[in-house]
Amino acid sequence: MSATTVQNQQWLYRRHPTGLVGREHYELVSSELDANLAADEVLVAARYISVDPYMRINQSSKPTYNPDPHPLDVVQVAGVVGQVVASRAAGLKEGDWVFGMLGWQTHAKAHASALQKLDPAQAPVSTALGVLGMPGRTAWFGLTESGRPHAGEVVVVSGAAGAVGSLVVQYAKRHGCKVLAVAGGAQKCAWLRDVLGADWAVDYKAHTDADALAATIKQLAGGVDVYFDNVGGMVTDAVIPLINRRARIVICGQISQYSGGLDVAELGPRFLQHMLYQRATIQGMLARDYVHRMDEMIRIVAPWVKAGEIVFEETVVEGFGQLPNALNQLFTGEHRGKLLVKV
Amino acid sequence: MSATTVQNQQWLYRRHPTGLVGREHYELVSSELDANLAADEVLVAARYISVDPYMRINQSSKPTYNPDPHPLDVVQVAGVVGQVVASRAAGLKEGDWVFGMLGWQTHAKAHASALQKLDPAQAPVSTALGVLGMPGRTAWFGLTESGRPHAGEVVVVSGAAGAVGSLVVQYAKRHGCKVLAVAGGAQKCAWLRDVLGADWAVDYKAHTDADALAATIKQLAGGVDVYFDNVGGMVTDAVIPLINRRARIVICGQISQYSGGLDVAELGPRFLQHMLYQRATIQGMLARDYVHRMDEMIRIVAPWVKAGEIVFEETVVEGFGQLPNALNQLFTGEHRGKLLVKV
Repeated sequence: MSATTVQNQQWLYRRHPTGLVGREHYELVSSELDANLAADEVLVAARYISVDPYMRINQSSKPTYNPDPHPLDVVQVAGVVGQVVASRAAGLKEGDWVFGMLGWQTHAKAHASALQKLDPAQAPVSTALGVLGMPGRTAWFGLTESGRPHAGEVVVVSGAAGAVGSLVVQYAKRHGCKVLAVAGGAQKCAWLRDVLGADWAVDYKAHTDADALAATIKQLAGGVDVYFDNVGGMVTDAVIPLINRRARIVICGQISQYSGGLDVAELGPRFLQHMLYQRATIQGMLARDYVHRMDEMIRIVAPWVKAGEIVFEETVVEGFGQLPNALNQLFTGEHRGKLLVKV
Repeated sequence: MSATTVQNQQWLYRRHPTGLVGREHYELVSSELDANLAADEVLVAARYISVDPYMRINQSSKPTYNPDPHPLDVVQVAGVVGQVVASRAAGLKEGDWVFGMLGWQTHAKAHASALQKLDPAQAPVSTALGVLGMPGRTAWFGLTESGRPHAGEVVVVSGAAGAVGSLVVQYAKRHGCKVLAVAGGAQKCAWLRDVLGADWAVDYKAHTDADALAATIKQLAGGVDVYFDNVGGMVTDAVIPLINRRARIVICGQISQYSGGLDVAELGPRFLQHMLYQRATIQGMLARDYVHRMDEMIRIVAPWVKAGEIVFEETVVEGFGQLPNALNQLFTGEHRGKLLVKV
């Protein structure tokens, strides 16, 4: 790093994936970043960079939550936790921890208003990418606002071992619900039961089809009052015929469909008659709708985090060079809790 | 009719249909009905008997809105408008018009509390089976409570020429919405535009597939804020990718699926990702949930009916013997408005 430039590494999004996303859709480039700062600007060095399922949604060729897909040949959009290297902003000094949507790059200049200062004494800074950040917001508001759980109800969570699902399991337990967690693999299921406190954990991979999975869920939990869905596909096919009267189905993610199914829709059994039978509700939600309400969540969840009452597992991949591989890992299921990359 | 018996004709439900329901699933029987009345009992002669899509739902082999299917070898459940022939109930005298769930039979004894007295001066009595009865309730509360339409929004109605759909079209117009009506056939579409006031009417039968139908709807209406769905299947496949932010999808019926699709689910494109993208809601509703709120609807809709401001077309099939054929007709689409049988 010279006085006025810093060597910056960036992952550029180069090619639209049709199936799984991976290394071949990105290019690692290195360049000089002009480190001169304007007023109120800050230079940030990335420490933790996020990989999230939404990134693959936004690579779909069809309109998604954004009208247009992620543009090619620019840095992959991503949440980043970093440290201030230089600052011309009041309130941010060298060494301070910040969160910002700085993308897959080792360094970034940002206006102070686009950064959120983090207090390492309150919680590990990486939680700004997890339990106290976007995935946590998704879990909290998805469950409380769309799921509206009540004590004694049965909550089924798909993708239960993931960043969002693992929190939903715990928040639903705190609401007094009976929680059935669905995940892939015996190890994840044991963790969900033994560590997270799910009443039941079901390995969907141990079932040949939706009917078999439905039979297991029905035997364990009876009917379903809230279905918090991160996955879609076969798990959803199994759960929907089991909904109780006035069930609430929260569509938080459909990760089983992201690696191609958003471009060309997969076929599945029609099920809308069940909504009619049970006068049930399906509601889609996105974390962005609750950005302005983070204080409501922080007020409740941050003390739980500080008291060590919430399990917020992180799967940390070491090395900036691993970012595309880590993103790919989201869809192959080889992680637990929040997946992030340590620069 | 002797002093103490009356000759009663009944349609018994004899056999579970797997496809279309028709004459072969019923048997016409004649028997003597003991006409002696207990205290508060009334003998009613049927004048108008209803056929409704829910009858076929309840013939599904799988649990539907009721845990068990319609039992075999009993009179088909149905709403009936009839006249009192004899009465031991205060407030009901010979000749009075009543509505009750008396089934497919020419005569029935009923406790006065199970009957609703009708005033022919207020509205034609047959409206108790239509605009002022169950289908009307479905249209009104489905649109207002689940659809929550606002002026300027686009409301798409499938099955728009049917008993419920034709009312939803008109109620949505009264809310200041732009209404796109979907129905089968050019004649129904002309009626929807010219008589009911739909802004656009689209003949789904003139489209080869959902993509073609979607292109037409998109070209006419742009996006969709409220989708009032009576039909499901291809029409729903076309509409869902067109929903706007925070769209509300009302599942009132899925008539395209009733003739077998409830037993063995048809395959269709997965679509839950659209709920996520647009933070949209799907809500199933049944008329039975609003029985206790009929006064709210009557207060608003009855004056419109009395003033002749609502088109409530009836397709009247003549003859008690035609009941199973009339039921079949619901699914082959050869009617407009409310289909009923005149005894």
